[in-house]
Amino acid sequence: MAAAAMKHRVVIVGGGFGGLLAARGLNKQPVEVTLIDRRNFHLFQPLLYQVATGGLSPANIAAPLRSILRRQRNTRVLLGEVIGFDLVNRQVQLHDGSAIPFDSLIIAAGSTHHYFGHDEWERFAPGLKTIEDATEIRRRVLSAFEEAERIADPLARARLLTFVVVGGGPTGVEMAGSIRELAAQTLRFDFRAIDPAQAKVILVEGLNRVLSGFHETLSRKALEALRKMGIEVRLDCHVVDVQSDHVLVRPDSGKAPAERIETSTVVWAAGVQANPLGKLIASAVGGVEIDRSGRVVVNPDCSVGNRSDVFVIGDLACYRGRDGRPLPGLAPVAMQQGQYVADVIARQVRGESRRGPFQYWDKGTMATIGRAQAVAESMGLRLSGYLAWLAWLFIHILYLARFENRVLVMFQWFWNYVTRNRTARLITGPGATTCRAGAVAGGSEPPGHS
Amino acid sequence: MAAAAMKHRVVIVGGGFGGLLAARGLNKQPVEVTLIDRRNFHLFQPLLYQVATGGLSPANIAAPLRSILRRQRNTRVLLGEVIGFDLVNRQVQLHDGSAIPFDSLIIAAGSTHHYFGHDEWERFAPGLKTIEDATEIRRRVLSAFEEAERIADPLARARLLTFVVVGGGPTGVEMAGSIRELAAQTLRFDFRAIDPAQAKVILVEGLNRVLSGFHETLSRKALEALRKMGIEVRLDCHVVDVQSDHVLVRPDSGKAPAERIETSTVVWAAGVQANPLGKLIASAVGGVEIDRSGRVVVNPDCSVGNRSDVFVIGDLACYRGRDGRPLPGLAPVAMQQGQYVADVIARQVRGESRRGPFQYWDKGTMATIGRAQAVAESMGLRLSGYLAWLAWLFIHILYLARFENRVLVMFQWFWNYVTRNRTARLITGPGATTCRAGAVAGGSEPPGHS
Repeated sequence: MAAAAMKHRVVIVGGGFGGLLAARGLNKQPVEVTLIDRRNFHLFQPLLYQVATGGLSPANIAAPLRSILRRQRNTRVLLGEVIGFDLVNRQVQLHDGSAIPFDSLIIAAGSTHHYFGHDEWERFAPGLKTIEDATEIRRRVLSAFEEAERIADPLARARLLTFVVVGGGPTGVEMAGSIRELAAQTLRFDFRAIDPAQAKVILVEGLNRVLSGFHETLSRKALEALRKMGIEVRLDCHVVDVQSDHVLVRPDSGKAPAERIETSTVVWAAGVQANPLGKLIASAVGGVEIDRSGRVVVNPDCSVGNRSDVFVIGDLACYRGRDGRPLPGLAPVAMQQGQYVADVIARQVRGESRRGPFQYWDKGTMATIGRAQAVAESMGLRLSGYLAWLAWLFIHILYLARFENRVLVMFQWFWNYVTRNRTARLITGPGATTCRAGAVAGGSEPPGHS
Repeated sequence: MAAAAMKHRVVIVGGGFGGLLAARGLNKQPVEVTLIDRRNFHLFQPLLYQVATGGLSPANIAAPLRSILRRQRNTRVLLGEVIGFDLVNRQVQLHDGSAIPFDSLIIAAGSTHHYFGHDEWERFAPGLKTIEDATEIRRRVLSAFEEAERIADPLARARLLTFVVVGGGPTGVEMAGSIRELAAQTLRFDFRAIDPAQAKVILVEGLNRVLSGFHETLSRKALEALRKMGIEVRLDCHVVDVQSDHVLVRPDSGKAPAERIETSTVVWAAGVQANPLGKLIASAVGGVEIDRSGRVVVNPDCSVGNRSDVFVIGDLACYRGRDGRPLPGLAPVAMQQGQYVADVIARQVRGESRRGPFQYWDKGTMATIGRAQAVAESMGLRLSGYLAWLAWLFIHILYLARFENRVLVMFQWFWNYVTRNRTARLITGPGATTCRAGAVAGGSEPPGHS
């Protein structure tokens, strides 16, 4: 124990892509790693929309952190919530009053939804960040069809069969495409009173194109694909109000009046905000800039302010490249930063020379739109359609490979693809056994969302 | 519509084994079937314990009712809660004020837990009937290991690593075996401060043997297998109190004092009680006997009292065979009764001769104990060990076959078996993000169970 206690102690906060890769990067190094997370699993967030639309089960895209790190003997996993940093005594403070000492600290706590100052919209328009978010959205989407089948009033039925997705980034596009597929294909023969294929899916985007992180050609291709699937896309439109039975949308152009879209199911895919731990660490270090969305502006080696022992990575970090533009909040950025910081610490511990600044190697980005439809760009190469979808499938399965679920997910996807079925269409969770009369009556809060 | 409206209307309450098989039995018959359930899926309850211990995902053992019945054109599925029966006007009353008219009514609403007058125990000792029960038990079991890893106090740690299962029937035996396997095998390398294999699993049974529904030889074999796995079995013992940090158990024999078992995780697998709809239909018909556990005593053709148009089947029915003993609450009984009643109605509608009384064909019963351990008996034949387990596996997969999930479940099982892993070990649901400090402090309510 005495010898072990003298080892360099690395504490990692967050078991997402950044934190996990940092932990992995420290495997077999002469350090003692403690990975702290509020949840007992790593979540493969890019596929969360598949859970929200019944294509995959939560367990397909989540792997217990302990299980992933079981063979890494220098690493322990701690389930806990970080509530503060004591940088003088170099300790991380947990919710239960305990303090975890560190020699190096890596904070990778990620991001959450952002409602642009309208937090009251959240209960009507849940975002998609956690497993619980996904099963809640799944419950709402599926319950809307159920309710529509049960009631006769054509207006209420039309409202129930209208789904609004706010935000035309990858998550919004994927959600809109999936809901449309669910309605038009999976549920096709399931109902008697309604025709699910009549369901309207409306995608609202504030900019003048979807997937604005991609090249314009691909935005156009994606827009075409979405419209071909029957999705209504409103560009240059901002949401100005969200209620239980409608959304108010205002076009940017001229003096056009706000449009009222009658809907009982809204999915929020518009804004993200850094975890509050960002502000906490910035003020603990002192003199550290925080960007508009709450991210910590980091040094070229991902350290913070004048503390060479404190690193912030992933969605929580604002890393400005040589052109001054911050890196996007993508899994590959977090993963590469995790690996980089692990290497920085390992070199320091071994007394080796310091590494140069972090460099993001952009292998490319991709987004799916629907069955056999995707866009991808990589090193100047732009793909769309079936080929892009195959590439997307392949790469996501490769990613998942590290998390043991590869075979299961592949199998489930293949199964869904062949049968056009989605086997995880369960309405579960709080409020699942009562029917959503409230949402139909209008005005009252949808049950199960307290 | 006019022609359709004149068809004989069959309303089925409950989409479990009984209700589903009744609906299937009416396929292509000249009737109009409405299947009403509170949930949108059929649940394969015999495998719920696999979800509770992380072996399977909820979607593996649940299939959307609409999906199962999508091709059955004479049948519609209605998501709703039945709150009453108007037998004068032949209507079923739903929670939303609507009324569904019927010509024949089949009630298959199943059963729920029973705490022998101690409903206050439920929050400390959840039962295992629904998907939410299973994920809640999964959360508690996995969180106990997490908490034990985090704290140093040896007494609190021992309490967290003690799991009590109340009830030595098939569910109790399967739960005890699964928890023990989870601890000794799946989690073996996952922790640093604790050795999960040291976890104690205690099975408490009121009678003098486990699996009392089976032949004594098999009870003995099961007891041996359980003890070999390291499970402590207390026979002839009754639970007299359940609190957040302990269970009081009193042996039947002599004047032995009650034993206090320190534990923070209790699973209830002891008593079942019929759905309250049983009492409701009995009093609506009038002059109908209700048995001790709330089941409706039915006529030889599963009809109720003097109503030849009202049937009660499955766990909700008390069907007395020629020897006067009621049939057990097993899936095969419910399934055969469902098929039987469908046939009774079909014959009546087609004007054919009436069928004789219902006859249960006992194909046998089986229960698993652990990895490659089971007991089975069928027509005088008694099996135990590996062969019984293979038979159990085979039959359960055959059963699931009808519900489309066969391949997925088989695959997941095979995967778990080969890797000794359980991929669905997620701590999710309300209360999943806060850690269970309450349970350790003792006395206060475990979070996430409000």
